[in-house]
Amino acid sequence: MGAAVDLTLLTDWLWILGLLGLGVTWLIWEQLRKLPPGNEVMRGLAAQIQSGALAFARRVAVVMGAFVLVAAALLFVVAGYRTATAFVGGALCSLAAAFCGLFAAVRANVRTAEAARYPGHPAALRTAFSGGAVAGLAVASLALLGTGLLYFLGIGRPDVVEEMRFREFAEIVSGFAMGASSIALFARVGGGIFAKATDMGADLVGKAEADIPGDDPRNPATLADLVGDCAGDTAGMGADLFESCAAAVIAAIAVGMTERTLVGYENRMAAVALPLFAVAAGLVASVAGVYLMRVVKPDRPAAALRSVQLASAGLFLLLAFGIVYALGFDLGDEETGRVYHYLGPFVAMLAGTLAGIAVGAVTALFTGPRAARRIAEASAGGPASTVLAGISAGLQSSTPVLLIVCAAVGAAYAASGLYGIAMAAVGMLATVGITMTVHAFGPIADNAGGIVQLGHLGPDARRVTEGLHTAGKETGAVITAFSIAAAALTSVALYAAYASWVGLAGINLVDPVVVIGFLVGGAIPFAVAALTITSVTKAARAVMAEVRRQISGEPGILQGTVAPDSAAAVDVATRHALREMVVPGVLAVGAPVLVGAGLGVEALGGMLAGATVTGVLLATFMANAGSAWDMARQYIDTGVVGGRGGAAHQAAIVGDTIGDPFKDAAGPSMNILIKLMSLVSLALVPWLLSLPVNQGKGAPAREPVLSMLDALVQAVGHAATALLG
Amino acid sequence: MGAAVDLTLLTDWLWILGLLGLGVTWLIWEQLRKLPPGNEVMRGLAAQIQSGALAFARRVAVVMGAFVLVAAALLFVVAGYRTATAFVGGALCSLAAAFCGLFAAVRANVRTAEAARYPGHPAALRTAFSGGAVAGLAVASLALLGTGLLYFLGIGRPDVVEEMRFREFAEIVSGFAMGASSIALFARVGGGIFAKATDMGADLVGKAEADIPGDDPRNPATLADLVGDCAGDTAGMGADLFESCAAAVIAAIAVGMTERTLVGYENRMAAVALPLFAVAAGLVASVAGVYLMRVVKPDRPAAALRSVQLASAGLFLLLAFGIVYALGFDLGDEETGRVYHYLGPFVAMLAGTLAGIAVGAVTALFTGPRAARRIAEASAGGPASTVLAGISAGLQSSTPVLLIVCAAVGAAYAASGLYGIAMAAVGMLATVGITMTVHAFGPIADNAGGIVQLGHLGPDARRVTEGLHTAGKETGAVITAFSIAAAALTSVALYAAYASWVGLAGINLVDPVVVIGFLVGGAIPFAVAALTITSVTKAARAVMAEVRRQISGEPGILQGTVAPDSAAAVDVATRHALREMVVPGVLAVGAPVLVGAGLGVEALGGMLAGATVTGVLLATFMANAGSAWDMARQYIDTGVVGGRGGAAHQAAIVGDTIGDPFKDAAGPSMNILIKLMSLVSLALVPWLLSLPVNQGKGAPAREPVLSMLDALVQAVGHAATALLG
Repeated sequence: MGAAVDLTLLTDWLWILGLLGLGVTWLIWEQLRKLPPGNEVMRGLAAQIQSGALAFARRVAVVMGAFVLVAAALLFVVAGYRTATAFVGGALCSLAAAFCGLFAAVRANVRTAEAARYPGHPAALRTAFSGGAVAGLAVASLALLGTGLLYFLGIGRPDVVEEMRFREFAEIVSGFAMGASSIALFARVGGGIFAKATDMGADLVGKAEADIPGDDPRNPATLADLVGDCAGDTAGMGADLFESCAAAVIAAIAVGMTERTLVGYENRMAAVALPLFAVAAGLVASVAGVYLMRVVKPDRPAAALRSVQLASAGLFLLLAFGIVYALGFDLGDEETGRVYHYLGPFVAMLAGTLAGIAVGAVTALFTGPRAARRIAEASAGGPASTVLAGISAGLQSSTPVLLIVCAAVGAAYAASGLYGIAMAAVGMLATVGITMTVHAFGPIADNAGGIVQLGHLGPDARRVTEGLHTAGKETGAVITAFSIAAAALTSVALYAAYASWVGLAGINLVDPVVVIGFLVGGAIPFAVAALTITSVTKAARAVMAEVRRQISGEPGILQGTVAPDSAAAVDVATRHALREMVVPGVLAVGAPVLVGAGLGVEALGGMLAGATVTGVLLATFMANAGSAWDMARQYIDTGVVGGRGGAAHQAAIVGDTIGDPFKDAAGPSMNILIKLMSLVSLALVPWLLSLPVNQGKGAPAREPVLSMLDALVQAVGHAATALLG
Repeated sequence: MGAAVDLTLLTDWLWILGLLGLGVTWLIWEQLRKLPPGNEVMRGLAAQIQSGALAFARRVAVVMGAFVLVAAALLFVVAGYRTATAFVGGALCSLAAAFCGLFAAVRANVRTAEAARYPGHPAALRTAFSGGAVAGLAVASLALLGTGLLYFLGIGRPDVVEEMRFREFAEIVSGFAMGASSIALFARVGGGIFAKATDMGADLVGKAEADIPGDDPRNPATLADLVGDCAGDTAGMGADLFESCAAAVIAAIAVGMTERTLVGYENRMAAVALPLFAVAAGLVASVAGVYLMRVVKPDRPAAALRSVQLASAGLFLLLAFGIVYALGFDLGDEETGRVYHYLGPFVAMLAGTLAGIAVGAVTALFTGPRAARRIAEASAGGPASTVLAGISAGLQSSTPVLLIVCAAVGAAYAASGLYGIAMAAVGMLATVGITMTVHAFGPIADNAGGIVQLGHLGPDARRVTEGLHTAGKETGAVITAFSIAAAALTSVALYAAYASWVGLAGINLVDPVVVIGFLVGGAIPFAVAALTITSVTKAARAVMAEVRRQISGEPGILQGTVAPDSAAAVDVATRHALREMVVPGVLAVGAPVLVGAGLGVEALGGMLAGATVTGVLLATFMANAGSAWDMARQYIDTGVVGGRGGAAHQAAIVGDTIGDPFKDAAGPSMNILIKLMSLVSLALVPWLLSLPVNQGKGAPAREPVLSMLDALVQAVGHAATALLG
């Protein structure tokens, strides 16, 4: 097929499209920077938030830098310089994605607040959206740039490729994804702990002890709280989605290179090219979506955000159809004689995209107005019934989300086998640019509201930012659920990659060793969720101690004559958030190593399966229960069931407070956990297969696996010879 | 081995030991009945509770009777008269076990209250314990009687057994277990909903609206609340443990008859006999434990209960060692060449017994004084931090519980293969008699406290019953966790039986259809937990409406001149509890049918695995979080952190109210759910294997399975011929 070869020739240069995407991102950033940053008070506030964000970023960068260097050194020894370099590259891209979003958010917030002073929505809405676009397009562009460059450097022009290159490339890409995943762990979970600790710290000491209202500049934790919103929701979600997107591409590439349904050089080239083309198409569609927002004149912000997302998804699907058509797949299973339609990979991507939209719809149902009303009405019976209603809603919502993921997996598998599952994940995540844009909109609107409050910009501006904030919350809940579904689908794809790559004939659930792995895997998300909730409480206590220390040490702070040391509060929260990451991080990396080396690769497969199922269910439960409580409180704020200050409102606040660590720390930590465990397993395959417990387990039919093992054994042998000789 | 044949000859007559056990139970019951039932007021109260219990039992019996008849008719058509008869038998045994406990409890309560009037613990402690013993020994005796009679009627004297009999027996035992399981669903989950609905209904209307204190006789729901304690904790737990015990025996028998490690007629006879002998030994050990309680003079009730349990476990292990030694196993895997030690089955039982004790110790750690103090201290920060601390403790506790189950599975498997896993479950559950005795002690002490309060028996008696109540709560939390671990181990054993019986070469976790099965399976417990929590709320609302109706319709009730219609309140709660069982019941039975028939037996295997892992984790989380909140509230009651009436106490009450449906309804429902799903799957194996989707999937090496299929196909053929001709 001539067309196919022509298109795969372009794969080498897709990273340039990533660079172009970064260029567009820079353009939007420059336009954003030129918008009026408000009066002196506002600029002062913004400067403080920015310096807080910088302090957070700097400390994270230092700690992560040290971690990445040590991990890279270890990888260098175990897996060679290629994997180690890719690991550093993945970590850098992820860090860049996270920080782009953070820095854009802390500049867009004050400009949104300024725009909110002028009547009519569009200006404020578009400013916040532009800030989100910087975060979103940075994530999408970096995902394409990173994976595209890996392809370019790892495989090179296809006409000079040797078969061997595929294997080297597989090592490299899993290193890249692991680097991204490590950063995501810190940015998302650490960011979440930071955000909720400063939130609780500011509220509890401020309102309860020092008798100052919320969002008061005299409270040393107020600015930290605003920084936290950006750190958790922008940097954290950016790193999470970047990782999911990169991991989905990598799973597709790994399956594409090892799966037996993809026979022949041309098919493998097309299979490896397609995920990169899909991400490129998603980037183009996202840029189009961002510019579409400038044209539409929306009355309802939430509806505008949703329609822009849907438009991007539609454009992406059009492009994806063309790409799959042009690549001309010819897929079939030689063993079973099954032949797939040449558009199968497109159907798989379609299933992924639709699943993402369906998960959003389900979430809107369980956290939307009806759920909010039900929980608000339950709140009339006191905090216990608020909590029970929210928990029930959360638990209920997790079943349909999982069923949707199952449906996508089933459809994708039917369309093109294991490769289809990986492509479904790619299809769901290709439009990550617009998704992240819409998500980053939320914390910017939230921050703008804080600045409007702190800067006394009046009720009109307040109403504008509150409208944006509500829209941001609605879409935020939906995208949080989307990120879970994406992590789930990516994990299943990574799982398929693991299975395909290990080349096991099967992971037998009748074997008690596999069952033990499965049960242990299932327990890990519960342990990590418990740890994360405890971590938030601990970090919040540290922030509260710092606030008390400042207030009691300097009476001028409460009188408003001395500015509080906000940077110190940020620093305390950052240090604690990072410290609390150690145990979950060790668990996520250590458990696969222990189980894989101790019980074997089949038990490790069982463990990944167990962790995925409980991780996804817990994540959905916690995220949606948290969002539902949040919405219920907001609903009561509008004056129903007794309104603000009533007993039901008090009860709803209890639900909301419980929901905060649920939806912003413990829930999202599951996303990272299940992906990181899968990636570590994937990266360790060659090492694991070399251990006595796994001797002879790689299926002989899968030549690349054994060659990798051979290569590793040879490398170790060479190293030993070099050392001893 | 001569000794082996001698012992297996006795297997036929083990059911007589079950009858003897019932005789001992009757003796204790008669002794209990002769104890003084207190003054007229107390007798009047007791009579009301008894008539409430009778009303509950009667309605349950009618509804369940109708259900059992319909289900038996269906089974008759699908699986023949043997399975249908066994189903009815299992249902009757389970119902008897549940009601024995209930009726003993509602007689022991008033006698315990009367005994509490006299100084010194022992009398009250022993009276409550005797009531528990009736419940406990009834469960253990019926388990032995039921399974023993099945063996006697199903297999007959071993010297006249033909090989074919094994297969018929397998059909029969799964029918029996399914009957027991159906009743357990209603008794445990329905009982839990009843108990919590009356509890909440009584509290919310009484205290908040009618301004009467708790446990006031004017409240129409007060007596329903006392009935509920017995219904949920005694009848429900009795049916739950009866089912676990019967199902463990049945799993061991099923694996014993089909597993390839058990080669030869004598080994199979020994393998089928051992679980029955073990249950007999457990019954003997439990009776000894019950009488031991009359000898020891305990100062601390909780310690006395624990030491009696440990003594019974020790005696059981001694007897079990002798039995395994005498049976003289000779186990080995012809395929892998692996040979097991002849004491392997004993080691497996030891692993199960130790796992039960370890789970108790872990639970005591997470719900004991230290956890209570931590949550109590968190309560100082308001209800949200109480809830978060309890959720964190519950989530944390589920990991070690699962790891203990894994360790038991691993040890048992190493000791004697799949058969060992089933025997571990038997080992854990053999001393069910003493376990249930100790558990039933709790609600009796609780009820006695209520009667002491309602009958104004003074502070001394109150102190005595409060001491017993606290001891009952502590051991109750431990045994609830034990029941979860037992359900988990039983499910794994049933899973092994399923796998061995279906004779699949493997349930391949790499196959996406299996992955879909386990994802769907994992979601079901989340859905059922949400349903159960909602059910409690709904039923509580109905009880509240009934209480309001009575109070507003007859002013004499609040004035104390007219007795409230307690029976009506019981009836409302019973009807709602039964109605709420329909959806979970349909889900538990329907899901395996749908998945097994739609996606095939491998996907069904994946589903069972998924449901087991999330079910066990959710159950432990909910049960232990609930117990921890309960303990924290009690700890604050003692006067710390502000004591009764303080802000922390208010917060702790919120936690306790959330914990009630967690630990007594939603958590326990998981036990039943995972066992019922496994049993339905097991019973449907012949039917499932006859479907086109599963054609050719039974491994040809496992002759019994295919013969069963043949028999079924022949039976259907005969029936069709008879109908058409």
